[in-house]
Amino acid sequence: MNQTSETHTRLSNVNQAFIEPLPNSTKIFVEGPRPDIQVPMREIKLTNTIGDLAEVNDPIHVYDTSGPYTDPSKSINLRKGVERIRSEWIAERGDTEELENFSSSFCNQRLQDKSLDELRFEHTRAPRRAKTGQNVTQMHYAKQGIITPEMEFIAIRENCLWQEYKDQIGQHKGEDFGASIPPIITPEFVRDEVARGRAIIPNNINHPETEPMIVGRNFLVKINGNIGNSALGSSIDEEVGKMVWGIRWGADTIMDLSTGKNIHETREWIIRNSPVPVGTVPIYQALEKVNGVAEDLTWEVFRDTLIEQAEQGVDYFTIHAGVRLKHVPLTINRVTGIVSRGGSIMAKWCLAHHTESFIYTHFEDICLIMKQYDVTFSLGDGLRPGCIADANDAAQFGELETLGELTKIAWKHDVQTFIEGPGHVPMHMIKHNMEKQLEECGEAPFYTLGPLTTDIAPGYDHITSAIGAAQIGWYGCAMLCYVTPKEHLGLPNQDDVKTGIITYKIAAHAADLAKGHPGAQIRDNALSKARFEFRWEDQFNLSLDPDTARKFHDETLPKQAAKTAHFCSMCGPKFCSMKISQEINSLDDVQVAKIQEIQIEMDKKSEQFLENDSEIYMKEGA
Amino acid sequence: MNQTSETHTRLSNVNQAFIEPLPNSTKIFVEGPRPDIQVPMREIKLTNTIGDLAEVNDPIHVYDTSGPYTDPSKSINLRKGVERIRSEWIAERGDTEELENFSSSFCNQRLQDKSLDELRFEHTRAPRRAKTGQNVTQMHYAKQGIITPEMEFIAIRENCLWQEYKDQIGQHKGEDFGASIPPIITPEFVRDEVARGRAIIPNNINHPETEPMIVGRNFLVKINGNIGNSALGSSIDEEVGKMVWGIRWGADTIMDLSTGKNIHETREWIIRNSPVPVGTVPIYQALEKVNGVAEDLTWEVFRDTLIEQAEQGVDYFTIHAGVRLKHVPLTINRVTGIVSRGGSIMAKWCLAHHTESFIYTHFEDICLIMKQYDVTFSLGDGLRPGCIADANDAAQFGELETLGELTKIAWKHDVQTFIEGPGHVPMHMIKHNMEKQLEECGEAPFYTLGPLTTDIAPGYDHITSAIGAAQIGWYGCAMLCYVTPKEHLGLPNQDDVKTGIITYKIAAHAADLAKGHPGAQIRDNALSKARFEFRWEDQFNLSLDPDTARKFHDETLPKQAAKTAHFCSMCGPKFCSMKISQEINSLDDVQVAKIQEIQIEMDKKSEQFLENDSEIYMKEGA
Repeated sequence: MNQTSETHTRLSNVNQAFIEPLPNSTKIFVEGPRPDIQVPMREIKLTNTIGDLAEVNDPIHVYDTSGPYTDPSKSINLRKGVERIRSEWIAERGDTEELENFSSSFCNQRLQDKSLDELRFEHTRAPRRAKTGQNVTQMHYAKQGIITPEMEFIAIRENCLWQEYKDQIGQHKGEDFGASIPPIITPEFVRDEVARGRAIIPNNINHPETEPMIVGRNFLVKINGNIGNSALGSSIDEEVGKMVWGIRWGADTIMDLSTGKNIHETREWIIRNSPVPVGTVPIYQALEKVNGVAEDLTWEVFRDTLIEQAEQGVDYFTIHAGVRLKHVPLTINRVTGIVSRGGSIMAKWCLAHHTESFIYTHFEDICLIMKQYDVTFSLGDGLRPGCIADANDAAQFGELETLGELTKIAWKHDVQTFIEGPGHVPMHMIKHNMEKQLEECGEAPFYTLGPLTTDIAPGYDHITSAIGAAQIGWYGCAMLCYVTPKEHLGLPNQDDVKTGIITYKIAAHAADLAKGHPGAQIRDNALSKARFEFRWEDQFNLSLDPDTARKFHDETLPKQAAKTAHFCSMCGPKFCSMKISQEINSLDDVQVAKIQEIQIEMDKKSEQFLENDSEIYMKEGA
Repeated sequence: MNQTSETHTRLSNVNQAFIEPLPNSTKIFVEGPRPDIQVPMREIKLTNTIGDLAEVNDPIHVYDTSGPYTDPSKSINLRKGVERIRSEWIAERGDTEELENFSSSFCNQRLQDKSLDELRFEHTRAPRRAKTGQNVTQMHYAKQGIITPEMEFIAIRENCLWQEYKDQIGQHKGEDFGASIPPIITPEFVRDEVARGRAIIPNNINHPETEPMIVGRNFLVKINGNIGNSALGSSIDEEVGKMVWGIRWGADTIMDLSTGKNIHETREWIIRNSPVPVGTVPIYQALEKVNGVAEDLTWEVFRDTLIEQAEQGVDYFTIHAGVRLKHVPLTINRVTGIVSRGGSIMAKWCLAHHTESFIYTHFEDICLIMKQYDVTFSLGDGLRPGCIADANDAAQFGELETLGELTKIAWKHDVQTFIEGPGHVPMHMIKHNMEKQLEECGEAPFYTLGPLTTDIAPGYDHITSAIGAAQIGWYGCAMLCYVTPKEHLGLPNQDDVKTGIITYKIAAHAADLAKGHPGAQIRDNALSKARFEFRWEDQFNLSLDPDTARKFHDETLPKQAAKTAHFCSMCGPKFCSMKISQEINSLDDVQVAKIQEIQIEMDKKSEQFLENDSEIYMKEGA
């Protein structure tokens, strides 16, 4: 076996554990108004309730980000990439064209480099771009009143068939802090939210593999998982593996933050195999191109990088256009200065050249690129606080005001835009962040990292930040960027990625419940009902991580019988509150009436007891 | 070796990992107004800042719950128990007497049972009780204007020497929702808070081993760790080990929830070796005494159990006196009925006898016992919601109202009282819980389990609940009962206990920061400064779990040199935002003035850019 094919074999290997269907789950597809709109959901089948309260428990449908990987009917071949389900939708709009060559000089240079052949994704196809004068963003279509297939897809996906349950199970009302969440998501609602900039659909025309999804405060809260190699380690297949692993557990988008070797090739593999939108921070790669010397960055290098990545299919770019020269001195008295990589690169550039950031001055040039491919702006928070002490300071909010200005410019170009946020913020200062973002940025979706609510727990920053993430999601944040246990300490491995994703699914779901998102409580209710009825397998299968739930149960009660036992390991068979409670539930009306009758008498005695007896006791005891 | 001595050896063994001092930490003692008040703190020594910003970094003092176990100058012998530091304080008050025999018939029966000799703690001492007519509670002293040594101890402990830092490091103001947190905790403030019932000092006169601590909304938020065997497993030495392990990581109190074999003996070992208050749920043991048949419970069995445990030294009792007959039918339509073990036992008893709970009707008899030993009431929430659907319902709030009535009765007897709370509550319904508790229970401290903010993540309920715990702590909850990853699934092992404790230390500390508790931010600031200055060892040592922080760092960069390197594994040496930021920090005034000058010019250009250029671009691009 020569080296090339060996590498390819390795790259195309997928760990079987990454692609098994989840337990007792089937991928179903809900057809939209046209047969090529096939919206995936995970159906979790439940067992029946037995005994006195016997009944059939309907299956539950949950949002499914895992694409074809958990679908046994689809063959997985990383060398070919996943199905391009949106190709026809993009082509039929007639406003784009296939280019003969890639437009980026760097891209062409890489393609011609024979030494990279062994690393290269082999089925690279021609890039697509807007025809001259055309704007191909979902926002542009939305503003013209067009409902795209992507929007149709999203409407079905967001509802997740919850209407089927609505008469069966109650849900708390929620507190939404001024959001406008409708009971049912319609395609028209999706269109309207995108048109007014309150939601984004990150769907580059060069990433037709994506299953459309939406980010906005009136939709389900989404989460992002970061992957990416660094100068210190990790290979292409590891990064592709992390992507597949991340979406298995619920990552709605993936950011490729690679800063090491072969960034271009790594990204191609990730995008071609990713059914979820992929975001990047182009300045990282631009810096590599100038050998890591921030001062040497130029608009030309950056522009070529944007085009290179746009033609590969990156769905959103983090652009640190808000780091302006005037903001830099505001960070001097901070405890931890500038902690964003992109922010510090641009700060250094501004200082070295004593002039305004070229990203800021070329912002409209960037808009021109974005709208030719429908790349969404993720306006980066280069000055986010890196510790509790620096939260909500002049540098952070100065940048946020600039991001608000830039949002309006992007919207003039119908370029979809969302805004990145902190960082490290104590709980009581989180809400102000959200309110200021909504105000400054005209309700453009907020996308935050955490925030971490304390600095004192490295090794547990998935938790310090989930506390903040759940809250900001509740207050209106649309997407939460995960934090893994390795934050501040090292590169996340496979376990860390999963822990980060599950932790952020918890935060996002807690936020959906608190906002009163329609149908959000169905899964909680189903799981709790299963728990109450000792349907152990259903309890595992309904949980965010069935494998861990089952494993933890089996550590104490490993035998198969224990999974049908009507007790659990906490109390043991004799001492089971659930069991006693089930007996109470079987009281009939006559018995309840009797209790109420007794209680009326008791209440009379109780009044005496409270008023008189306590006096007696006081005398005796004191 | 015969069986007895073998068992004793095993029982007296302490895992060395449980009692090593934490890295770079020394236990110091701050002396109070009398020489036998020696308040322990952990001093974490820091390295100096080097380079341009060279300075000495003062050590940090943190609250230390670990007692003698992390003090190399103390010998640890589980067979003898820990030092009885409060014996003299209790004796000198002259209001208690040593009894010749234990008062509980069950206790005496166990003591006479030769077959238990091998399990028995050998240095059992005579119990102490109030002299006839005396009330020995801290609340009773406080109401009379007496500042006890316990209160002096607590005042020093709560401040944790933070005043030494106040001119050096800033802190955010916080939002305290009507708490009354003073800048410095004085002994008089401690006394006043205890007198008015807004704080409790759980310190049974038969548990003189405790280092006094306080629970109240105007003090640092505390956490409790549960231990205890069940019918299905775990031995005495495991449980004692879990206690030592739990307080090493920060458990402020321990609850022994044993329901299996040898509850009495297990508890003796735990109490004699515990420097933190120990709580129990006496109804669990009472039920064992009637062979698990709830209907067979009687006031006499329960009363004997209370006295048995009070004379052993239990500091607080969970008493489910609020589960009244009339509340039981309110649970019928719940998704998960009654999930509290104690609550369901009492509900079953009420139904079986068709009469009011004997705990409720004998509440004043219980007060008489409590005040003879200074056992604190933890009024149990037997009807707490077991799922999101059941949150804040009529059963839960009906019980809470009863707990409010009972609080006032307990206070008439000067019996210290705090109130247990939920459970499972979505985020937007947490605040109402706290507000209602404060209102109904006259600001008696609230002590909550979580709350869990979603039901869908068994295996991660430490996280689902930390989100809720941090919030309710912020709103005014005084103590948070930890939840481990095994919640709902199995019995926690050593790792689970640690994970639960650290997670809850995070929640409690996030709450302290958000409330603006004086000095709370010192550790965050010190850790962040260490992070910014690449003082890796200091970063590890200042963290809640230095071992995990160091381990995670070393997974990516194992070499010793990497712990002094001025970069980290996330970006690598070339690409370090912290490093760039440090360069920015070294700008002098002249350079900053220059930047401001340039920016004025830039702003003019920028206005043009925003107003004019964008029009041009619009025409070109659209």
